[in-house]
Amino acid sequence: MAIEGSDDKFSGRIRLGMVGGGRDAFIGAVHRIAARLDDRYELVAGCFSSTAEKSQASGADLGLPTDRVYDDYTAMAKREARLKTGIQAVAIVTPNHVHLGPAREFLRRGIHVICDKPLTATLPDARKLAKAAEKSDALFVLTHNYTGYPMIRQAQAMVAAGELGEIRVVQVEYPQDWLAEPLEGTGQKQADWRTDPARSGAGGSTGDIGTHAYHLARFVTGLPLEALSADLQSFVEGRRVDDNAHVMLRFQSGARGMLWSSQVATGYDNRLRLRVFGSKGGIEWMQEDPNTLWYSPLGEPTRRLTRSGAHVGEAANRLSRIPPGHPEGYLEGFANIYSEAADAIQARLTGTTPDAAVAYPGISDGLEGVAFVNACVKSSAANAKWTKLDL
Amino acid sequence: MAIEGSDDKFSGRIRLGMVGGGRDAFIGAVHRIAARLDDRYELVAGCFSSTAEKSQASGADLGLPTDRVYDDYTAMAKREARLKTGIQAVAIVTPNHVHLGPAREFLRRGIHVICDKPLTATLPDARKLAKAAEKSDALFVLTHNYTGYPMIRQAQAMVAAGELGEIRVVQVEYPQDWLAEPLEGTGQKQADWRTDPARSGAGGSTGDIGTHAYHLARFVTGLPLEALSADLQSFVEGRRVDDNAHVMLRFQSGARGMLWSSQVATGYDNRLRLRVFGSKGGIEWMQEDPNTLWYSPLGEPTRRLTRSGAHVGEAANRLSRIPPGHPEGYLEGFANIYSEAADAIQARLTGTTPDAAVAYPGISDGLEGVAFVNACVKSSAANAKWTKLDL
Amino acid sequence: MAIEGSDDKFSGRIRLGMVGGGRDAFIGAVHRIAARLDDRYELVAGCFSSTAEKSQASGADLGLPTDRVYDDYTAMAKREARLKTGIQAVAIVTPNHVHLGPAREFLRRGIHVICDKPLTATLPDARKLAKAAEKSDALFVLTHNYTGYPMIRQAQAMVAAGELGEIRVVQVEYPQDWLAEPLEGTGQKQADWRTDPARSGAGGSTGDIGTHAYHLARFVTGLPLEALSADLQSFVEGRRVDDNAHVMLRFQSGARGMLWSSQVATGYDNRLRLRVFGSKGGIEWMQEDPNTLWYSPLGEPTRRLTRSGAHVGEAANRLSRIPPGHPEGYLEGFANIYSEAADAIQARLTGTTPDAAVAYPGISDGLEGVAFVNACVKSSAANAKWTKLDL
Amino acid sequence: MAIEGSDDKFSGRIRLGMVGGGRDAFIGAVHRIAARLDDRYELVAGCFSSTAEKSQASGADLGLPTDRVYDDYTAMAKREARLKTGIQAVAIVTPNHVHLGPAREFLRRGIHVICDKPLTATLPDARKLAKAAEKSDALFVLTHNYTGYPMIRQAQAMVAAGELGEIRVVQVEYPQDWLAEPLEGTGQKQADWRTDPARSGAGGSTGDIGTHAYHLARFVTGLPLEALSADLQSFVEGRRVDDNAHVMLRFQSGARGMLWSSQVATGYDNRLRLRVFGSKGGIEWMQEDPNTLWYSPLGEPTRRLTRSGAHVGEAANRLSRIPPGHPEGYLEGFANIYSEAADAIQARLTGTTPDAAVAYPGISDGLEGVAFVNACVKSSAANAKWTKLDL
Repeated sequence: MAIEGSDDKFSGRIRLGMVGGGRDAFIGAVHRIAARLDDRYELVAGCFSSTAEKSQASGADLGLPTDRVYDDYTAMAKREARLKTGIQAVAIVTPNHVHLGPAREFLRRGIHVICDKPLTATLPDARKLAKAAEKSDALFVLTHNYTGYPMIRQAQAMVAAGELGEIRVVQVEYPQDWLAEPLEGTGQKQADWRTDPARSGAGGSTGDIGTHAYHLARFVTGLPLEALSADLQSFVEGRRVDDNAHVMLRFQSGARGMLWSSQVATGYDNRLRLRVFGSKGGIEWMQEDPNTLWYSPLGEPTRRLTRSGAHVGEAANRLSRIPPGHPEGYLEGFANIYSEAADAIQARLTGTTPDAAVAYPGISDGLEGVAFVNACVKSSAANAKWTKLDL
Repeated sequence: MAIEGSDDKFSGRIRLGMVGGGRDAFIGAVHRIAARLDDRYELVAGCFSSTAEKSQASGADLGLPTDRVYDDYTAMAKREARLKTGIQAVAIVTPNHVHLGPAREFLRRGIHVICDKPLTATLPDARKLAKAAEKSDALFVLTHNYTGYPMIRQAQAMVAAGELGEIRVVQVEYPQDWLAEPLEGTGQKQADWRTDPARSGAGGSTGDIGTHAYHLARFVTGLPLEALSADLQSFVEGRRVDDNAHVMLRFQSGARGMLWSSQVATGYDNRLRLRVFGSKGGIEWMQEDPNTLWYSPLGEPTRRLTRSGAHVGEAANRLSRIPPGHPEGYLEGFANIYSEAADAIQARLTGTTPDAAVAYPGISDGLEGVAFVNACVKSSAANAKWTKLDL
Repeated sequence: MAIEGSDDKFSGRIRLGMVGGGRDAFIGAVHRIAARLDDRYELVAGCFSSTAEKSQASGADLGLPTDRVYDDYTAMAKREARLKTGIQAVAIVTPNHVHLGPAREFLRRGIHVICDKPLTATLPDARKLAKAAEKSDALFVLTHNYTGYPMIRQAQAMVAAGELGEIRVVQVEYPQDWLAEPLEGTGQKQADWRTDPARSGAGGSTGDIGTHAYHLARFVTGLPLEALSADLQSFVEGRRVDDNAHVMLRFQSGARGMLWSSQVATGYDNRLRLRVFGSKGGIEWMQEDPNTLWYSPLGEPTRRLTRSGAHVGEAANRLSRIPPGHPEGYLEGFANIYSEAADAIQARLTGTTPDAAVAYPGISDGLEGVAFVNACVKSSAANAKWTKLDL
Repeated sequence: MAIEGSDDKFSGRIRLGMVGGGRDAFIGAVHRIAARLDDRYELVAGCFSSTAEKSQASGADLGLPTDRVYDDYTAMAKREARLKTGIQAVAIVTPNHVHLGPAREFLRRGIHVICDKPLTATLPDARKLAKAAEKSDALFVLTHNYTGYPMIRQAQAMVAAGELGEIRVVQVEYPQDWLAEPLEGTGQKQADWRTDPARSGAGGSTGDIGTHAYHLARFVTGLPLEALSADLQSFVEGRRVDDNAHVMLRFQSGARGMLWSSQVATGYDNRLRLRVFGSKGGIEWMQEDPNTLWYSPLGEPTRRLTRSGAHVGEAANRLSRIPPGHPEGYLEGFANIYSEAADAIQARLTGTTPDAAVAYPGISDGLEGVAFVNACVKSSAANAKWTKLDL
């Protein structure tokens, strides 16, 4: 993807800032690699911590000049918006409860926002952020990174083209086992905030990974939900949020589904798996082997479709870098969201029309994700009562 | 397993009769192979059809003398019970609604019964059969054949020994796709009766395969159910029973589960899969690769246990015939139920004590299976209300 | 497969005798199950050991009358040939060096022979047996059981139909690890004779499993060998035969191949695998997952063909018993050889024409197998010199 | 991996140039991503083509200033060596016959060289380059990228630690199918030069992928080769180099191996696989699923080791970026070679001691690779005669 900028303001790479993602953070580093991989961004500023010393140390690690390192995201937004070569986009990689604040500050100043998921810790916050995004000219991109995998795009294209016929059943699951023991008591930073309702939101596994699973199913099938019935559990003694969730889904079309998210599924790391069954065929995809999509046309042998391989179409190929048999992975999928965002941002910067195929997740996906978590918690509290998403 | 009979009445092989299983039947032939595989039975009589000509034709196919071929199971039971070398056991392989009748006739005459699943088409019938079994001195064996797989025995033994710790989550599914289209309209015999509530029972996929899935989970974990919440569907136009079922499970211990049965899961033949997750480890088993049991001790690499292989114990080994790497399959698993039944029957015939390890499914499993189907149908009709098994 | 015998001489099941296969033997029990599985044979006599007491004990285990149990195979052949209901066929399951003797005795008396592989321990013996078979009216069947797997028949049919185009490359391997340590020193009976050149032949892994691999490649591709180049090793201290063999193959057609047999391949049980690559497509099959055949038409996605499933033809289906997704295994594949032999034997007994599709391995396959071992040993001794089969 | 440079000359990222890799090239883009992924390099100059216009067009695509884009690698080397902020390292990604020329120019000017494999098209060229590297103070890095996969490092560490015991058997293969048809006649640029002996060298599959397979086996086992016996073929009509190679290996230690490289293996993309069997255990790894290493301790169940997972050590973990279950792929493995090179280059630039664990492939690996191709061609021409590497 050649970069051909002719605009004064735009000199090839999008100038990117980051909020969060200092030393010890996990997802910040992932965002930085994702931004860098296709050479579409240049990290030039950051507010890596609210403690000045920590933020500067992280900035130094990344080779940033001290005057572009902040300890207050509002100050960062204000100053960067005024700088001649200030940031054009910002990545927000803080814990969930600190998404709304910075996102609002940058959006109101016309700086494009790339935000980690889930959108916010609470539904009211999600609504506020949705409004802020609506009012802003800037773009809002949510990194539901799994939809960046090429074979997920292939799956979506096949469903959209009717290759599976009418969708009947959706099975999606995201099991992990990293919280099978009370890790949050040990000082482990990730476990600490992700099991704290005040920072993570009311959902535990539902918020952290269930939203990924839900979004993936939603993205591939395109089916709006009618209602869900959820049975949440906290198996680990003293845990304050769910660590396992069983959810039955009813889609408006009449299709049905099951969703399972778990952080106590001993033996699984990130075994996100999606299966969709239609009247004419079925597909199966697993995140731990993301370059493969199993496709079973009814009454014919199952086929192994591979990234960049035979019978794989443009929707997937435009997000692939290398030939089949050379695996691309999690970082490449994540980078695809960043690169699609770059396409859209550059179109804005240059006043051109964005590529119609760009399909990164946005604010409405984020709102729906938080509504999903909310509905799961509400349904489970009501003994798995069928509950609609409060959109 | 050497056969060492010294009793007058018993001459090495158990004399077996069959009800059902004539030409065109599927499961009858499976039962016959299962009975023959370990040389513990000899088929000597049968009532293969209620039409005399058809029954005789099937009997001739099997090399039976005409005077041991019947067209009325009651007549068969009466005469065989009187014969000096009459049958000692009978296999009932008729459609579900014709289990109770013959089973009762044979049980009341002291002839051991090996019956296909589900126990009956209705819960009242199941209760009647349970009573008949209770009153009889004869044994009642239900061919939930998947519990005959050695690696399922291994799984059960590991759970029982506490190797998984406290069980938290059970995921079990049995997807097929053979009814993805309205096959019952085409004259296909299997589809015909299996989608007819009068013959199959109120459950479709739930009765035909959901009971297998439920029994498998129940057998391996040993956990009694507290309640279930079911969402059943009939996706194929005009179908009178469910062809897809989503079920959430709550066990009395506090463990939770999900069960999925489907006959419209395009791409799957008999993809029965069980996963059990405990506080100390998890296991995974799939019927289409039955010689493997994946075992993940928490915090350690996943291990591939194989039938007859390293770290596999006596519970599995006693049901294995050949070394690891030489796959045993469906018929061998089925034969294991027959051979365990033979152990128990021979113990009765010879007045000896049966092997304590014998673990074939029996009348209470059958009753619970029908109660499971009943609860699914009832729950689904009540919008997935939590429903207890009516035992 | 209904048995419809109308001949006086034939009463439904073929009367079978056995030589070898007493207590402690491995392969004898496999032959008995294979013979029994499809109800085509009845075991009525045996010479299970040359020690009378042992032979009688084994016969009693199997429920045989004492007067049909022998301790001398020549005596058995003589008497059974004279009996009105003497055996019609005999299974020879002794160590390799005791194949020729009994086979010759039964063949010369018109009793059909089903013999374990390899044909004999030495090439001169193989030639003698080939001559004996040629002179006899009786059939000779060699249990290269892996060719009995339905998906191997499917593979053969696809090659024969030109679906792979011109065959270019054949990769076949049979790795095991059961002899990774000096098991022959421990009194283990199987290891003892299989590593003894006097009983097993000059080849170790080449004779025991390399012949299976070679036959499988030969059977599926139909390609005659031009020459081979072999590098044999004995990794375990003191071992007298090869426990690992690397062999390059040149076929007369110009196709090339590699064959690897090993008994020291740590981690493998019976990982026999065949891959064939042609100008238009490739196939892959693995014995440990025998119900699957991977088929890759050039330029199209790989397809997973399954036993009894879509696009699988009659050559495989006629040897299948149950629907796809219900695995058949090693014993069923072995039974297929027995059942094909039964078809041929019954055709002889009834004077009818045998089914043209019957394709069990016979005397020429056996001779070629021993010639293969001989060529491997000879080539390796000459520093991997290209060597032709001495047929 | 924080970059902490304090030297005047070094400002955080290594200034990188590139020779080759213009529009239409495949591997050049891969090198650029690999260099960028961990933020250790900045591409600042390039000679992308010997045609000025083409080179400038490629430079513009990459955002390079025109005065840093060259059409003559010697001119580039001269000028960059003189520039105050000239390149510190150069990536050479031209066809094989154009490795020696540029490498020599940069090496003699003290600019570090990162060169694609194989080292050169001919053995004399390889020797010249080895001498040039020896005389230079600059580093020479060869991108045998598959050794950059973390689980390959884990495998090497396990072998080195004796976990497999004494190595007995090595099985390595690299099958592809992209040249199953005469693609070189169609104008496809990659097929064109890679099948031209003048540009690619005397080996076809042996040079292009056989060298990767050989290096992988050599790297993991550490075993020097005694001799090889090769049987090369050109299956496609008119092809001038081998497209399939069968090679038997004898290692100096007494271990034996087989190597297969193929570009006509229908159904395979880049199915590079390595298996190593020792007296105490075996391992198996496949490039298409690179995050997994199967480990089979003798007599114990096989274990699935995963990148960053349990029981995986520092040698692998230092090259991992993200948690287990989130796959890293080909580009990350390639980037690991670049990042290890960066460690070594920065150590040179800053006068510090390089990390002892740095293990990128270098000039001697390159020389051995070309000697391997040479020996294959020579051995095959002599009817697979055992041939030593001419080192």
